[in-house]
Amino acid sequence: MGKSLYFCGSIRGGRDDAALYLKIVEHMKLYGKVLTEHVASPEMSASESTGVDASLTTAEIHDRDMIWLSDCDAVVAEVTVPSLGVGYEIGRAMNFNKPILCLFRPETGRRLSAMIDGAPNPSNKITVKTYTEVQEALNYVTAFLSTCS
Amino acid sequence: MGKSLYFCGSIRGGRDDAALYLKIVEHMKLYGKVLTEHVASPEMSASESTGVDASLTTAEIHDRDMIWLSDCDAVVAEVTVPSLGVGYEIGRAMNFNKPILCLFRPETGRRLSAMIDGAPNPSNKITVKTYTEVQEALNYVTAFLSTCS
Repeated sequence: MGKSLYFCGSIRGGRDDAALYLKIVEHMKLYGKVLTEHVASPEMSASESTGVDASLTTAEIHDRDMIWLSDCDAVVAEVTVPSLGVGYEIGRAMNFNKPILCLFRPETGRRLSAMIDGAPNPSNKITVKTYTEVQEALNYVTAFLSTCS
Repeated sequence: MGKSLYFCGSIRGGRDDAALYLKIVEHMKLYGKVLTEHVASPEMSASESTGVDASLTTAEIHDRDMIWLSDCDAVVAEVTVPSLGVGYEIGRAMNFNKPILCLFRPETGRRLSAMIDGAPNPSNKITVKTYTEVQEALNYVTAFLSTCS
Protein backbone atom coordinates (compact mmCIF):
# COMPACT_ATOMS: atom_id res chain seq x y z
CA MET A 1 0.00 0.00 0.00
CA GLY A 2 1.63 3.25 -1.08
CA LYS A 3 2.29 6.02 1.39
CA SER A 4 1.28 9.68 1.05
CA LEU A 5 4.51 11.62 0.85
CA TYR A 6 5.35 15.32 1.11
CA PHE A 7 8.43 16.75 -0.60
CA CYS A 8 9.81 20.16 0.40
CA GLY A 9 12.06 22.16 -1.91
CA SER A 10 12.72 25.82 -2.55
CA ILE A 11 10.42 27.64 -4.97
CA ARG A 12 10.49 31.42 -4.39
CA GLY A 13 13.76 31.11 -2.45
CA GLY A 14 15.41 30.07 -5.73
CA ARG A 15 15.27 27.21 -8.24
CA ASP A 16 18.98 26.33 -8.49
CA ASP A 17 18.26 22.75 -7.34
CA ALA A 18 15.13 22.09 -9.39
CA ALA A 19 16.74 19.28 -11.43
CA LEU A 20 17.86 17.59 -8.23
CA TYR A 21 14.36 17.89 -6.74
CA LEU A 22 13.01 16.08 -9.79
CA LYS A 23 15.38 13.14 -9.23
CA ILE A 24 14.40 12.91 -5.56
CA VAL A 25 10.67 13.11 -6.27
CA GLU A 26 10.87 10.51 -9.04
CA HIS A 27 12.61 8.21 -6.55
CA MET A 28 10.04 8.93 -3.82
CA LYS A 29 7.29 7.85 -6.23
CA LEU A 30 8.59 4.28 -5.92
CA TYR A 31 7.28 4.38 -2.34
CA GLY A 32 3.99 6.23 -2.62
CA LYS A 33 2.15 9.26 -3.94
CA VAL A 34 4.10 12.52 -3.74
CA LEU A 35 1.45 15.11 -2.90
CA THR A 36 3.72 18.05 -3.72
CA GLU A 37 5.35 16.72 -6.88
CA HIS A 38 4.77 20.07 -8.60
CA VAL A 39 7.60 21.49 -6.45
CA ALA A 40 9.99 19.51 -8.64
CA SER A 41 8.40 20.56 -11.94
CA PRO A 42 10.63 22.45 -14.42
CA GLU A 43 7.59 24.75 -14.94
CA MET A 44 7.78 26.14 -11.40
CA SER A 45 9.49 29.52 -11.22
CA ALA A 46 10.90 31.62 -8.39
CA SER A 47 9.90 34.90 -10.02
CA GLU A 48 6.38 34.33 -11.27
CA SER A 49 3.36 32.15 -10.61
CA THR A 50 3.50 29.22 -13.00
CA GLY A 51 2.35 25.63 -13.21
CA VAL A 52 -0.38 24.24 -10.99
CA ASP A 53 -0.15 27.09 -8.47
CA ALA A 54 -0.64 29.81 -11.08
CA SER A 55 -4.41 30.04 -10.54
CA LEU A 56 -4.31 29.93 -6.73
CA THR A 57 -3.91 32.68 -4.16
CA THR A 58 -1.08 32.27 -1.67
CA ALA A 59 -3.69 31.56 1.02
CA GLU A 60 -5.09 28.73 -1.09
CA ILE A 61 -1.59 27.34 -1.69
CA HIS A 62 -0.77 27.55 2.02
CA ASP A 63 -4.00 25.95 3.19
CA ARG A 64 -3.84 23.17 0.61
CA ASP A 65 -0.24 22.40 1.56
CA MET A 66 -1.04 22.33 5.28
CA ILE A 67 -3.83 19.82 4.67
CA TRP A 68 -1.41 17.68 2.66
CA LEU A 69 1.23 18.03 5.37
CA SER A 70 -1.16 16.97 8.12
CA ASP A 71 -2.37 14.01 6.03
CA CYS A 72 1.00 12.70 4.83
CA ASP A 73 2.89 9.70 6.19
CA ALA A 74 6.37 11.19 5.80
CA VAL A 75 8.24 14.30 4.75
CA VAL A 76 11.42 14.57 2.66
CA ALA A 77 13.03 18.02 2.48
CA GLU A 78 16.03 19.08 0.38
CA VAL A 79 17.38 21.94 2.50
CA THR A 80 20.48 23.15 0.66
CA VAL A 81 18.89 26.25 -0.94
CA PRO A 82 17.73 28.54 1.90
CA SER A 83 13.94 28.76 1.75
CA LEU A 84 11.41 30.28 4.17
CA GLY A 85 8.74 27.93 2.86
CA VAL A 86 10.80 24.78 3.41
CA GLY A 87 11.71 25.91 6.94
CA TYR A 88 8.05 26.70 7.66
CA GLU A 89 6.92 23.30 6.38
CA ILE A 90 9.51 21.54 8.56
CA GLY A 91 8.39 23.56 11.60
CA ARG A 92 4.73 22.74 11.00
CA ALA A 93 5.57 19.07 10.30
CA MET A 94 7.33 18.86 13.69
CA ASN A 95 4.03 19.81 15.33
CA PHE A 96 2.18 17.22 13.28
CA ASN A 97 4.75 14.71 14.62
CA LYS A 98 5.65 13.56 11.11
CA PRO A 99 8.80 11.58 10.27
CA ILE A 100 11.03 14.09 8.47
CA LEU A 101 14.20 13.47 6.43
CA CYS A 102 16.29 16.56 5.63
CA LEU A 103 18.97 16.28 2.92
CA PHE A 104 21.86 18.77 2.71
CA ARG A 105 24.92 19.23 0.47
CA PRO A 106 27.76 20.91 2.41
CA GLU A 107 30.13 21.20 -0.58
CA THR A 108 28.05 24.08 -1.94
CA GLY A 109 29.80 26.18 0.70
CA ARG A 110 26.59 26.92 2.55
CA ARG A 111 26.10 26.19 6.24
CA LEU A 112 22.85 24.54 7.25
CA SER A 113 20.59 26.55 9.54
CA ALA A 114 21.15 25.69 13.20
CA MET A 115 17.35 25.43 13.50
CA ILE A 116 17.41 22.44 11.14
CA ASP A 117 20.82 20.96 11.92
CA GLY A 118 20.11 21.18 15.66
CA ALA A 119 16.53 19.90 15.58
CA PRO A 120 17.02 16.11 15.79
CA ASN A 121 16.83 14.51 19.24
CA PRO A 122 15.52 11.21 20.65
CA SER A 123 12.09 12.70 21.35
CA ASN A 124 11.31 13.66 17.75
CA LYS A 125 11.25 12.14 14.27
CA ILE A 126 13.49 14.50 12.30
CA THR A 127 16.76 13.34 10.75
CA VAL A 128 19.37 15.36 8.87
CA LYS A 129 21.66 13.67 6.35
CA THR A 130 24.51 15.30 4.43
CA TYR A 131 25.51 14.04 0.99
CA THR A 132 27.64 14.76 -2.05
CA GLU A 133 26.37 12.57 -4.89
CA VAL A 134 22.68 12.30 -5.81
CA GLN A 135 22.72 8.52 -5.38
CA GLU A 136 23.63 8.96 -1.71
CA ALA A 137 20.54 11.13 -1.25
CA LEU A 138 18.35 8.54 -3.00
CA ASN A 139 19.78 5.82 -0.77
CA TYR A 140 18.87 7.88 2.32
CA VAL A 141 15.35 8.31 0.93
CA THR A 142 15.05 4.56 0.41
CA ALA A 143 16.21 3.76 3.94
CA PHE A 144 13.91 6.43 5.41
CA LEU A 145 10.75 5.50 3.52
CA SER A 146 11.32 1.77 4.01
CA THR A 147 11.30 2.15 7.78
CA CYS A 148 9.09 5.08 8.74
CA SER A 149 5.48 4.52 9.76
CA MET B 1 5.81 45.75 32.35
CA GLY B 2 8.05 44.74 29.47
CA LYS B 3 7.19 41.88 27.19
CA SER B 4 9.48 39.00 26.20
CA LEU B 5 10.03 39.36 22.49
CA TYR B 6 11.51 37.08 19.83
CA PHE B 7 13.11 38.50 16.69
CA CYS B 8 13.71 36.30 13.64
CA GLY B 9 16.27 37.22 10.99
CA SER B 10 18.52 35.32 8.62
CA ILE B 11 21.88 34.16 9.92
CA ARG B 12 23.26 31.25 7.85
CA GLY B 13 20.89 32.09 4.99
CA GLY B 14 22.84 35.33 4.54
CA ARG B 15 23.56 38.55 6.43
CA ASP B 16 22.68 41.15 3.78
CA ASP B 17 20.06 42.70 6.09
CA ALA B 18 22.03 42.64 9.34
CA ALA B 19 22.06 46.45 9.69
CA LEU B 20 18.31 46.55 9.21
CA TYR B 21 17.83 43.83 11.83
CA LEU B 22 19.75 45.99 14.29
CA LYS B 23 17.39 48.93 13.73
CA ILE B 24 14.33 46.71 14.23
CA VAL B 25 15.71 45.06 17.37
CA GLU B 26 16.71 48.42 18.89
CA HIS B 27 13.14 49.60 18.29
CA MET B 28 11.66 46.41 19.77
CA LYS B 29 13.66 47.03 22.95
CA LEU B 30 11.38 50.01 23.65
CA TYR B 31 8.63 47.44 24.27
CA GLY B 32 10.39 44.66 26.14
CA LYS B 33 13.34 42.30 26.29
CA VAL B 34 14.44 40.90 22.94
CA LEU B 35 15.50 37.34 23.74
CA THR B 36 17.26 36.84 20.39
CA GLU B 37 18.99 40.22 20.09
CA HIS B 38 22.22 38.48 19.07
CA VAL B 39 20.59 37.80 15.67
CA ALA B 40 21.03 41.50 14.94
CA SER B 41 24.63 41.66 16.14
CA PRO B 42 27.27 42.73 13.59
CA GLU B 43 29.41 39.89 15.05
CA MET B 44 27.07 37.19 13.72
CA SER B 45 28.30 35.59 10.52
CA ALA B 46 26.68 33.37 7.89
CA SER B 47 29.86 31.42 7.25
CA GLU B 48 31.29 30.70 10.70
CA SER B 49 30.20 30.40 14.29
CA THR B 50 30.75 33.74 15.98
CA GLY B 51 29.33 35.76 18.82
CA VAL B 52 27.26 34.25 21.58
CA ASP B 53 26.49 31.07 19.61
CA ALA B 54 30.16 30.27 18.94
CA SER B 55 30.48 27.95 21.95
CA LEU B 56 27.18 26.13 21.46
CA THR B 57 26.30 23.07 19.39
CA THR B 58 23.47 23.49 16.89
CA ALA B 59 21.30 21.29 19.14
CA GLU B 60 21.94 23.66 22.05
CA ILE B 61 21.13 26.68 19.87
CA HIS B 62 17.94 25.04 18.61
CA ASP B 63 16.72 23.93 22.03
CA ARG B 64 17.48 27.29 23.65
CA ASP B 65 15.65 29.12 20.87
CA MET B 66 12.61 26.85 21.13
CA ILE B 67 12.38 27.52 24.87
CA TRP B 68 12.58 31.27 24.17
CA LEU B 69 9.99 30.95 21.41
CA SER B 70 7.55 29.08 23.64
CA ASP B 71 8.06 31.62 26.46
CA CYS B 72 7.82 34.82 24.43
CA ASP B 73 4.83 37.14 24.19
CA ALA B 74 5.28 38.04 20.53
CA VAL B 75 7.40 37.36 17.46
CA VAL B 76 8.72 39.83 14.88
CA ALA B 77 10.31 38.33 11.76
CA GLU B 78 12.07 40.15 8.93
CA VAL B 79 11.45 37.76 6.05
CA THR B 80 13.07 39.40 3.01
CA VAL B 81 16.25 37.27 2.96
CA PRO B 82 15.19 33.62 2.42
CA SER B 83 16.11 31.65 5.52
CA LEU B 84 15.28 28.09 6.60
CA GLY B 85 15.71 29.08 10.23
CA VAL B 86 13.30 32.02 10.04
CA GLY B 87 10.71 29.86 8.25
CA TYR B 88 11.15 27.14 10.87
CA GLU B 89 10.74 29.61 13.73
CA ILE B 90 7.55 31.00 12.17
CA GLY B 91 6.17 27.46 11.73
CA ARG B 92 6.96 26.54 15.33
CA ALA B 93 5.58 29.89 16.57
CA MET B 94 2.30 29.12 14.75
CA ASN B 95 2.18 25.87 16.70
CA PHE B 96 2.74 27.84 19.92
CA ASN B 97 -0.11 30.19 18.90
CA LYS B 98 2.10 33.27 19.24
CA PRO B 99 1.26 36.67 17.72
CA ILE B 100 3.63 36.98 14.74
CA LEU B 101 4.47 40.05 12.63
CA CYS B 102 6.31 39.34 9.37
CA LEU B 103 7.99 42.27 7.56
CA PHE B 104 8.90 42.09 3.86
CA ARG B 105 10.47 44.44 1.29
CA PRO B 106 9.15 43.68 -2.21
CA GLU B 107 11.40 46.19 -4.00
CA THR B 108 14.36 43.84 -3.55
CA GLY B 109 12.85 41.89 -6.45
CA ARG B 110 12.22 38.82 -4.33
CA ARG B 111 8.81 37.19 -4.00
CA LEU B 112 7.74 36.19 -0.51
CA SER B 113 7.20 32.49 0.09
CA ALA B 114 3.57 31.48 -0.38
CA MET B 115 3.86 29.62 2.94
CA ILE B 116 4.37 32.95 4.72
CA ASP B 117 2.35 35.28 2.49
CA GLY B 118 -0.58 32.86 2.53
CA ALA B 119 -0.52 31.99 6.22
CA PRO B 120 -2.66 34.78 7.74
CA ASN B 121 -6.35 34.02 8.30
CA PRO B 122 -8.94 34.96 10.93
CA SER B 123 -8.18 31.84 12.99
CA ASN B 124 -4.51 32.63 13.59
CA LYS B 125 -2.30 35.46 14.86
CA ILE B 126 0.14 35.95 11.99
CA THR B 127 0.28 39.17 9.99
CA VAL B 128 2.42 40.04 6.97
CA LYS B 129 3.30 43.67 6.20
CA THR B 130 5.22 44.95 3.19
CA TYR B 131 7.32 48.09 3.41
CA THR B 132 9.90 50.21 1.62
CA GLU B 133 11.44 52.57 4.18
CA VAL B 134 12.75 51.39 7.54
CA GLN B 135 10.49 53.81 9.41
CA GLU B 136 7.43 52.07 7.96
CA ALA B 137 8.69 48.80 9.41
CA LEU B 138 9.27 50.40 12.80
CA ASN B 139 5.75 51.86 12.72
CA TYR B 140 4.34 48.38 12.05
CA VAL B 141 6.36 47.03 14.99
CA THR B 142 4.98 49.77 17.25
CA ALA B 143 1.39 49.09 16.24
CA PHE B 144 1.89 45.32 16.62
CA LEU B 145 3.60 45.38 20.02
CA SER B 146 1.22 47.99 21.40
CA THR B 147 -1.79 45.76 20.75
CA CYS B 148 -0.72 42.15 21.00
CA SER B 149 -1.21 40.23 24.23
